[in-house]
Amino acid sequence: MSALVLSGRELAAAIRAEAGNRAAELTAEGRPPQLAVVTATADESSAWYVRSIANAAEKTGLRCEVHDLGPDAGPTAVRERLEQLSTDPTVHGLMLQTPLPPGATLEELASAIAFEKDVDGANPLSLGRLAAGMPAFAPATAEAVVALLDFHKVPLSGRQAVVVGRSTVVGKPVAHLLLDRDATVTVCHSRTADLAAVTRTGEVLIAAVGRAHLITPDHLRPGAVVVDVGTNPTPDGGLTGDVAPGAAAVAAALTPVPGGVGPVTTALLLRHTVLAADRAG
Amino acid sequence: MSALVLSGRELAAAIRAEAGNRAAELTAEGRPPQLAVVTATADESSAWYVRSIANAAEKTGLRCEVHDLGPDAGPTAVRERLEQLSTDPTVHGLMLQTPLPPGATLEELASAIAFEKDVDGANPLSLGRLAAGMPAFAPATAEAVVALLDFHKVPLSGRQAVVVGRSTVVGKPVAHLLLDRDATVTVCHSRTADLAAVTRTGEVLIAAVGRAHLITPDHLRPGAVVVDVGTNPTPDGGLTGDVAPGAAAVAAALTPVPGGVGPVTTALLLRHTVLAADRAG
Repeated sequence: MSALVLSGRELAAAIRAEAGNRAAELTAEGRPPQLAVVTATADESSAWYVRSIANAAEKTGLRCEVHDLGPDAGPTAVRERLEQLSTDPTVHGLMLQTPLPPGATLEELASAIAFEKDVDGANPLSLGRLAAGMPAFAPATAEAVVALLDFHKVPLSGRQAVVVGRSTVVGKPVAHLLLDRDATVTVCHSRTADLAAVTRTGEVLIAAVGRAHLITPDHLRPGAVVVDVGTNPTPDGGLTGDVAPGAAAVAAALTPVPGGVGPVTTALLLRHTVLAADRAG
Repeated sequence: MSALVLSGRELAAAIRAEAGNRAAELTAEGRPPQLAVVTATADESSAWYVRSIANAAEKTGLRCEVHDLGPDAGPTAVRERLEQLSTDPTVHGLMLQTPLPPGATLEELASAIAFEKDVDGANPLSLGRLAAGMPAFAPATAEAVVALLDFHKVPLSGRQAVVVGRSTVVGKPVAHLLLDRDATVTVCHSRTADLAAVTRTGEVLIAAVGRAHLITPDHLRPGAVVVDVGTNPTPDGGLTGDVAPGAAAVAAALTPVPGGVGPVTTALLLRHTVLAADRAG
């Protein structure tokens, strides 16, 4: 027995197609949706990710402008650019790429992103509204987890979901989204006493720690559905998840890395940008 | 064997004493700390709660002004009053009492409370900042839970904490505060499949559902520490918790109702107001 593979490519294509249709209409009306990405780093994998977003936007018919402030830009320059783009009426979606300049935190800088343009849910106001059940863009990765489970018809209501990792960008917002869907949610992390004992309670397990293959077959309840959010670089230049390959023998279903949560995340950034453009009227 | 009683009265008295000392200093400097409470309801128990806050404030040497807009005030009147008090330099702490006018939600209206004066953590921005690990006032009840556990020297790091209830004012912020303290946190609720099986995993159990005696001895892991956030009215005009009396035979320790979380909550509202006055310079 090997686990069913829960690919994200079909869902991502469907989201892009829908976003592309609406983007074409808005463009025809003279208000083309535009995503602005602010970056201030020489990090290689960050640059790769930004290019992949820009490519996806272009193919989908959205404008995407990358504001590369260079690795020497300080927090003030980043904040000022975010403030400027927040009031620029031609920009509908606005995201800040990590890593950030030394001394800066994503939460502090992202507070400068206008709430309506915060397509990656990085402004703490977005997270708070999300937790309070108010309209807000969720962080795209967190939303991608639940979208992928929905697409593959994995029930969530009343089920035990375990989230490994408590980051502000993934673990915490995923926990809120799963709670909204009536799952019983456990968040565990590096300080959890017996991690495998806790993760084995999960009918649905979300691995979002950023450590290659931390989740082994021993961590899984037989028949669990496992979503792997990890994108850890491999020596040969590829990507691998937080879940060890052997997990496929215990899990009922498993998202691949790459090709699982990743493409859905990018597609959702585009959908959010089109929605923001739509609302901007 | 009967569980240790984790009273909140001593801690509340200590918090009030400290807040009172600083309030006296600030008053001597000509800037007396002031808490404003906005209410728009004829609800009896709400009026009782507001009076108890006002009394505690007065005894502690803080000013407390109750803005009673009456049960016929609409959401707009409430919002306008909150906006006005948010910019009033003599007001340092600002809270909105529930129940609210029909059609209004606490989250929407509390968005009008200036973040620095949001002493009961009701503005979604406060919740988001809290979740993101940034400075913010937590909802006083949620903070009281953790403060009471700390006061009674209950360790949290690495332990399994179960929160019953997922409200924006208690369950969710308590979960974040416990995560910050390195507990492994499970949130369960009315849709949880086998509630007792989940709550029995809790070394620390927080009952915040608002249903009298929902948590029975059968829900408890032997030796658990139980914090009862419930304040349910009894036929004789008293209050009773979410935890059934028999729980004392199974738990190692238990907070009483009344006299547990409640007095600490009120004391923390005063502490937050003094802190806000301090910061307002």
